[in-house]
Amino acid sequence: MPRYALKIEYDGGPFCGWQRQRDGQPSVQAAIEAALARLGAAQTIAAAGRTDAGVHATGQVAHCDMQREWDVFRLAGAINAHLRPLPVAVVAVARVADDFHARFSAVERRYLFRLAMRRAPATHDRGLVWQVGHDLDLAAMQAGAAFLVGRHDFTTFRAALCQAASPVKTLDEISIRRVEGMGGPEIQFSLRARSFLHNQVRSIVGTLERVGAGAWKPDRVRAALAARERSACGPVCPPQGLYLAGVGYADDPFAATEGSGGQPPHPRDI
Amino acid sequence: MPRYALKIEYDGGPFCGWQRQRDGQPSVQAAIEAALARLGAAQTIAAAGRTDAGVHATGQVAHCDMQREWDVFRLAGAINAHLRPLPVAVVAVARVADDFHARFSAVERRYLFRLAMRRAPATHDRGLVWQVGHDLDLAAMQAGAAFLVGRHDFTTFRAALCQAASPVKTLDEISIRRVEGMGGPEIQFSLRARSFLHNQVRSIVGTLERVGAGAWKPDRVRAALAARERSACGPVCPPQGLYLAGVGYADDPFAATEGSGGQPPHPRDI
Repeated sequence: MPRYALKIEYDGGPFCGWQRQRDGQPSVQAAIEAALARLGAAQTIAAAGRTDAGVHATGQVAHCDMQREWDVFRLAGAINAHLRPLPVAVVAVARVADDFHARFSAVERRYLFRLAMRRAPATHDRGLVWQVGHDLDLAAMQAGAAFLVGRHDFTTFRAALCQAASPVKTLDEISIRRVEGMGGPEIQFSLRARSFLHNQVRSIVGTLERVGAGAWKPDRVRAALAARERSACGPVCPPQGLYLAGVGYADDPFAATEGSGGQPPHPRDI
Repeated sequence: MPRYALKIEYDGGPFCGWQRQRDGQPSVQAAIEAALARLGAAQTIAAAGRTDAGVHATGQVAHCDMQREWDVFRLAGAINAHLRPLPVAVVAVARVADDFHARFSAVERRYLFRLAMRRAPATHDRGLVWQVGHDLDLAAMQAGAAFLVGRHDFTTFRAALCQAASPVKTLDEISIRRVEGMGGPEIQFSLRARSFLHNQVRSIVGTLERVGAGAWKPDRVRAALAARERSACGPVCPPQGLYLAGVGYADDPFAATEGSGGQPPHPRDI
């Protein structure tokens, strides 16, 4: 059966997370599996990142096996038609080899975290940013973040229920920048690694927010990492600012079939 | 009674527009008036721009008269507390002179229109952009737009029900740029004028989209303007990409009381 990789975007707000739950709570996985079943391809699908409740994606990747060959634009359109009106969309589809696995073939995950600095309640960005009511020191957060880049035992920044075999991970990048969003100034954290521990990004961002607010000196991040102790972590920040922004593969399956941002190069309906 | 100017942000999706309706449909004006009534300041308020149903704002301005002097941050916080959970927020408050009038003192209105080029349904930006499934020629739209800048009879680009005394307006600026949004490539139109006719921005953007799609030559925009005939207009585009982005006054009332994006300069709760 021909295998396809799906690049998926979703608003995590209405979902209990990516993963299908036994109790039938709404999950992104179940929504896409239901759409595939309507296309005669009932199956359990796997994704590169099992995002938590409330966490969003702009570049989640999953794969599926279809009963027949599909034009990639028609397949995206057919899945999206069955996903309506849920805030989930397939933004690109690629035909991949039978041994491609969205999770096990992935060599990199990229996360974006959006933190809005404003006191007035969010309107357009509600549920899409973590909001703090005070200004943050960008340079201090960058200094604190620098201690975390590289190969480390991240026990401090790992959820108690994390199932990873080892707490040792290599964090390839944390870049932090200030941008002017439509709702005012935002801090955007971009993190990149082969893989992450459970709650690692939210533990890191929550800790760096304390540094930005002046409650922690940047050096305390180094001490927290060295402690290898969950209790040394800063507060874990809420999920609604977090986006799985992209997944890397040795050979990008979507390179040929999409323009930037999931826009196919020629005008057919998805 | 002391008068205050309010800078207001809202998601227009759940509202019938800015203006309070006799039939009690939800309006932004009624929401803010209800919040003010809870603060002992029942009144009818006026805004700089009476946005239509589904149209958003990041910089609407209204004014109100309070029974007593208020600290501007406390007043914003108090109004916002009573606005919850509606997607409306006061992002700045300024004490103004008794003769300040949000509508009649305004010397400039700025609108932003967001057009997303993608075929997959919008997720995070649902209801916040006008989505078209084809690519658009930026240079052609810029060439078409150039014919509209300046003082003209805009009868072609005016709703039949427009109540303005004259169709002659001066359009000070239309700038059009391509940006990479979180959901892919976007065209953003920025328009600036002392005042606009009813549906003028949506008539212009809908027409320019036809130019960008190649259905109209840029020159046809000049001919349409010269026709001074509503039937010469392109299709009026939908409201959900439109934002009232700002209002200009001879003396900016908010200059002293806010940072960028509605963020007050020091940490108090709004």
